[in-house]
Amino acid sequence: MASTPSCWKNICFHRLLTSKLLVMKVAIQGELGAFSHEAANHMVPGCTIVPCARSRNVFDKIEQGAVHAAVIPIENSLAGSIAEHLDLLVACDVFIHREFYQRIVHNLIAAPGVKMNQVSRVFSHPVALEQCRNFFRRYHHVEAVPFYDTAGSVKHVIEQSLRNAAAIAGRQAAAVYRGKILKAGIEDDKRNFTRFFLINKRQRIGGRANKTSIAFQVKNIPGSLFKALSVFALRDISLTKIESRPMRGRPWEYVFYVDLLRGDDEAARNALHHLGEVAEFVKILGVYPTA
Amino acid sequence: MASTPSCWKNICFHRLLTSKLLVMKVAIQGELGAFSHEAANHMVPGCTIVPCARSRNVFDKIEQGAVHAAVIPIENSLAGSIAEHLDLLVACDVFIHREFYQRIVHNLIAAPGVKMNQVSRVFSHPVALEQCRNFFRRYHHVEAVPFYDTAGSVKHVIEQSLRNAAAIAGRQAAAVYRGKILKAGIEDDKRNFTRFFLINKRQRIGGRANKTSIAFQVKNIPGSLFKALSVFALRDISLTKIESRPMRGRPWEYVFYVDLLRGDDEAARNALHHLGEVAEFVKILGVYPTA
Repeated sequence: MASTPSCWKNICFHRLLTSKLLVMKVAIQGELGAFSHEAANHMVPGCTIVPCARSRNVFDKIEQGAVHAAVIPIENSLAGSIAEHLDLLVACDVFIHREFYQRIVHNLIAAPGVKMNQVSRVFSHPVALEQCRNFFRRYHHVEAVPFYDTAGSVKHVIEQSLRNAAAIAGRQAAAVYRGKILKAGIEDDKRNFTRFFLINKRQRIGGRANKTSIAFQVKNIPGSLFKALSVFALRDISLTKIESRPMRGRPWEYVFYVDLLRGDDEAARNALHHLGEVAEFVKILGVYPTA
Repeated sequence: MASTPSCWKNICFHRLLTSKLLVMKVAIQGELGAFSHEAANHMVPGCTIVPCARSRNVFDKIEQGAVHAAVIPIENSLAGSIAEHLDLLVACDVFIHREFYQRIVHNLIAAPGVKMNQVSRVFSHPVALEQCRNFFRRYHHVEAVPFYDTAGSVKHVIEQSLRNAAAIAGRQAAAVYRGKILKAGIEDDKRNFTRFFLINKRQRIGGRANKTSIAFQVKNIPGSLFKALSVFALRDISLTKIESRPMRGRPWEYVFYVDLLRGDDEAARNALHHLGEVAEFVKILGVYPTA
């Protein structure tokens, strides 16, 4: 962050993105058709999705250069932060390029030709089933069957040509596996949003960047967090997120995750330089435009 | 917190707990044998568990006086905070009485008489299956089958007398459903701890209380969180947790969850009084002994 971003790199990156020859490969955790797939389509239109079984694999693929980027969920308005992804952002050599808020819409999806009155079992991830309780209350003869993954449950229902079953997943899963949406928007709470990050191996700070995500650690003494936050308060820099996470295997030591409403300007650079004086370590996770 | 706890109430509560006539009814979210059941056994030995399908039901039961207390998970060292429970602690009329850290140990459990070499399918909650990947790598012919609940998967395997299946859950689930532990401690990462709260309708501050959990909201202006935290820093009060959560339906407004390493002493009372001056609202979630 302290050094000015290389103009050359930015132009180069822009050319890669706009070139008709290059299709961006974007890794996601989960099956094709997952909510991360929907988010990736919004963030990198026309990209090729590379599904990975585990989050760790997604980060490995970026570090190894096997994909151009990845799209990962970082927090959900109902369920909170995805701690594993916060931890991986600190541990791995990656940078946030953009953020995106996606409304989570659950749909009832079945094989083509299947009618609602034929459905007696509905497959999905336990969290999705839980978020559609009103549906199961209304159709109380329908059994909720837990499955590994939302998109995976659609794949299962379609590939097995099940005539008495359906699955709950996002719209993208219906498109990928050629399922039919029997009912759209069956989630109980419409205020269900997930924040996604587009991450990349290379640090890049675009001209419109006005938000910065950082992680830092301070000494375990009274007032140390206060002193760390003073570097922002003294410069009237607003924070939009703060979260402490215990460090693995080091009880009573914490990493703090903070989002600032500032890009790569002088006040932010000074604040981060100042933070470097009072913190044990600071990592800039990304400088990007507010969604 | 500002008022001195009533001695009468404390003695009364203690008598209730030690009385041979009263068996404490403790609500948990999930099936009998869940990790919350194990935690409740540690926190309230000899209690009667009241299983509830949803977290909201657990809090309702306390508010209605249908149970004496509840034991709820609040954060896990690998997965982070349970946002729904943080939100419910603020929304409901309940107080934290104690905290407890439980090591999460996953066990392979089958019906009595079933041998390891007979097992071809293993049921459990997707998170538990994910935390035992090394087991599935070693026994690669064994299929991982997602289920609603860890303890529920043991109940299923035993009640159906499955001879070619097992389930992954805590030790308590084996005890409740009379299953046999085929392999103990099959989780990949031993640094897997969950922090539980014992919550109650009545506010109670014991003599050994040296930790306070609070939630507060500040105005959405630069430096407001800093000003709020200054009330603790000025009095050398250590914080062990801080987390911001967006307020439902109110974009850009946040509730902060903070744990202080202080009980009901003069400095803490002054700090919380001071916080009341600078914050929009403050709620004391509990004052209790550090685990």
